[in-house]
Amino acid sequence: MDPSLRGRLAACNAPWMEGILRRFTPATGAASRLCLPHHLAEFDQTMLTLYFAPNTAALAVHIALQESGAIYNTVRLNFASNDQKAPQYLAINPKARVPALLTEQGVLTETPAILAYVAQCFPAANLAPNEPFGFARAQAFNNYLCATVHVAHAHRVRGARWTDEPEVAQALTKKVAQNMADCFALIERDMRTGPWVMGASYSICDAYLFTVAGWLEGDGVDIAGFPAVHAHHQRMLARPAVQTVLALHRA
Amino acid sequence: MDPSLRGRLAACNAPWMEGILRRFTPATGAASRLCLPHHLAEFDQTMLTLYFAPNTAALAVHIALQESGAIYNTVRLNFASNDQKAPQYLAINPKARVPALLTEQGVLTETPAILAYVAQCFPAANLAPNEPFGFARAQAFNNYLCATVHVAHAHRVRGARWTDEPEVAQALTKKVAQNMADCFALIERDMRTGPWVMGASYSICDAYLFTVAGWLEGDGVDIAGFPAVHAHHQRMLARPAVQTVLALHRA
Repeated sequence: MDPSLRGRLAACNAPWMEGILRRFTPATGAASRLCLPHHLAEFDQTMLTLYFAPNTAALAVHIALQESGAIYNTVRLNFASNDQKAPQYLAINPKARVPALLTEQGVLTETPAILAYVAQCFPAANLAPNEPFGFARAQAFNNYLCATVHVAHAHRVRGARWTDEPEVAQALTKKVAQNMADCFALIERDMRTGPWVMGASYSICDAYLFTVAGWLEGDGVDIAGFPAVHAHHQRMLARPAVQTVLALHRA
Repeated sequence: MDPSLRGRLAACNAPWMEGILRRFTPATGAASRLCLPHHLAEFDQTMLTLYFAPNTAALAVHIALQESGAIYNTVRLNFASNDQKAPQYLAINPKARVPALLTEQGVLTETPAILAYVAQCFPAANLAPNEPFGFARAQAFNNYLCATVHVAHAHRVRGARWTDEPEVAQALTKKVAQNMADCFALIERDMRTGPWVMGASYSICDAYLFTVAGWLEGDGVDIAGFPAVHAHHQRMLARPAVQTVLALHRA
């Protein structure tokens, strides 16, 4: 674990941080050493902690983790009370955003990067193509969601990122529906093969598309206008992992 | 090659498309078959075509390709004459953006995805960590540049993406310098180890950081205010591959 991260974590007083730090403390003494393989196996599994908030892109990572078969912890942040700006959380992710994934090697941020990490750590779940071109196609799809579609959506609710003038932020909401519709027209065109984003195989891209498509209604766009995306959304809702995670987010 | 892509390419009349299509046509006949291994080796190498325009994120991919040792073709687009919106180019990338990389398996878009592809296709160049956590850290860095820093910059020159009102687009330019400075303060903090973004090893992240840092001056931010980023920029300018590519972009 990155020593500076340990220092930043140690500087926090949140009760939920204690459990995390305990898990980062290497076991010492003869007894621990004797059961090392079992201990390490358990260590790896419980080392993953996802920081999420409802109605954010973290839903995609949560679904991917659930589908991967990983054993993982979650910490729920409340954006309404600005949990993401608390010093405890800024020690985890100075960008004050979710998702963040705490691993035994340190913290990872940025949805497409964490999704790829989950896919690579749990190859048996087959959540991403494993040759360069297919993998790059999946990354390109996720990057488009992250850097274009999510950004288009963010101009409705997070205009203050790009302007300090409330009336300008208000004006930015006007083009959101059109931009989201344009983005999904492009996605719809690429979804022709199906049933999943990458074709025959379910992947991390499906969890991410499901998440972002879930924002359409709030953005004033009818998902039914994109039949392939709509069918994909229904297909996702039928998956047990998606139902499990949605229930947690909506609790 | 994706048949629908071949169809879209074939529908184009641009002279530069002919050469590309010729390279996509499998060699037939006894003579070709006899020299298959050599032919294929050459085929793979010349199969990569980068579409770029000066002063865009495509510079990062161009530098990475140059550092990778790949033999590749380039097609220069002129954004001033809207080359990126011409039907020939929309057949390559319907998003009307650069970079796009034409490979023997199809087209790739999105800078972080193409950078990862180049790193994975040319492992001898050691342009990215090859274990999941290190790779994810590199992807997270590149995703931040793509989805936050590039987006912050784009509000100065491409405000029309998010508003149809010229006065609103004009108002969006006001916060660009502050947002870029905030982003680079965060990057500066993460650059403490050096000399490269990922530490001791030069990687695709360096080409991308160099590219985006090159936009600071135009955005009204003095790079000298970020000593580690500034030193990194100078270090990059000293690399022969960077000098070669910059000369092409500035020609």
